Amino acid sequence: MKVLVVGANGQIGKHLVSIIQDKGNMEAKAMIRNQEQAPFFEHLGAESAVVDLEGDIESIAKAAEGVDAIVFTAGSGPHTGKDKTIMVDLDGAIKTIESAKAAGVKRFVMISSFDTRRQAILDAPPSFAPYVAAKYYADEWLRSTNLDYTIIHPGGLTNDQGTGKVKTGFDLDIAEIPREDVARAIVASLENDSTIGKEFQVLNGNTPVEEAIGSI
Amino acid sequence: MKVLVVGANGQIGKHLVSIIQDKGNMEAKAMIRNQEQAPFFEHLGAESAVVDLEGDIESIAKAAEGVDAIVFTAGSGPHTGKDKTIMVDLDGAIKTIESAKAAGVKRFVMISSFDTRRQAILDAPPSFAPYVAAKYYADEWLRSTNLDYTIIHPGGLTNDQGTGKVKTGFDLDIAEIPREDVARAIVASLENDSTIGKEFQVLNGNTPVEEAIGSI
Repeated sequence: MKVLVVGANGQIGKHLVSIIQDKGNMEAKAMIRNQEQAPFFEHLGAESAVVDLEGDIESIAKAAEGVDAIVFTAGSGPHTGKDKTIMVDLDGAIKTIESAKAAGVKRFVMISSFDTRRQAILDAPPSFAPYVAAKYYADEWLRSTNLDYTIIHPGGLTNDQGTGKVKTGFDLDIAEIPREDVARAIVASLENDSTIGKEFQVLNGNTPVEEAIGSI
Repeated sequence: MKVLVVGANGQIGKHLVSIIQDKGNMEAKAMIRNQEQAPFFEHLGAESAVVDLEGDIESIAKAAEGVDAIVFTAGSGPHTGKDKTIMVDLDGAIKTIESAKAAGVKRFVMISSFDTRRQAILDAPPSFAPYVAAKYYADEWLRSTNLDYTIIHPGGLTNDQGTGKVKTGFDLDIAEIPREDVARAIVASLENDSTIGKEFQVLNGNTPVEEAIGSI
């Protein structure tokens, strides 16, 4: 299985490409913004494609040609302006979804926010609400497609080393999860077709990630 | 015909409520953010409802109960942050659309931007692109509903006195239009069911507004 990782140079993205490349039966294609980001992925033996997520759908679709799945794990990050929330978290995500359609790639895994329900927009602090709204609309757009999607809602992201153990569910109380374990949950989702058409929250926990995702 | 004007205290909104109240066969209900904005509308003989567009759908739907049409002409304005672009131009618009459904109000007129096609997002200067994207998604959301919608794409807005004459079409070269004439075009749209399910650009021109809108 060949997987286009959109946002490969992000912190989850780097873990994800690395884990995919370590497996024998998958390969990653890293979608990155600048050529200078390429050596990291070359070192992992992964192909890369330089595409501006703020550009047109055609460029993303070109990068998606021939892959079996797309993972959207790009994020504008907490230190950019709200303009990037619109251009990356909302519009970048939706253009990637449209690129999947255009390139005929059915399998799509979206890395969302912990809670993107409408009530979560209302409940969020004013500085965070626009991000939740952007993710809400990206998730809604994906749900309305015929793609084989999985939407993953991770808890508070940390850079702790992954434990390989998680807790999944919905309406969970928020807790943390290492980015490395989110990446493992993405890979497990790609390997379990039972996650198609579904979405779940994922936190640190006690169940091996393959088992937790496999039982969804 | 009773019309809920969302964004009534805006510059187009004030013209719109005034024009509606001057007609014998229509009445406006001004949806405003603060009670302090109410006297202007009371003076025009118009009902008002204080609702936070950043609040929940239920509050907007309550204001929409019993009206025959909703006009969305709220805008975050050029001097607010991009957080408001998400919370008002995108989420406020879409919550208003959902409120129309919830309240059983079929007729919906959206005041959009001059060009909200995907290419326009790419062509816009970086500072303007997020606004165009927000309006793109709001328009897309409305198009996907079963509401009797009209989407109006006005040119560059001025505070010049209205001439009552406009030019309508699509793919026009951008030009200016007084906000007062946009308000007249909204009223003419509400009075012409031939505009249902359609969208058009409107600029200053040589054709009386009722005639221009009536021929759409």
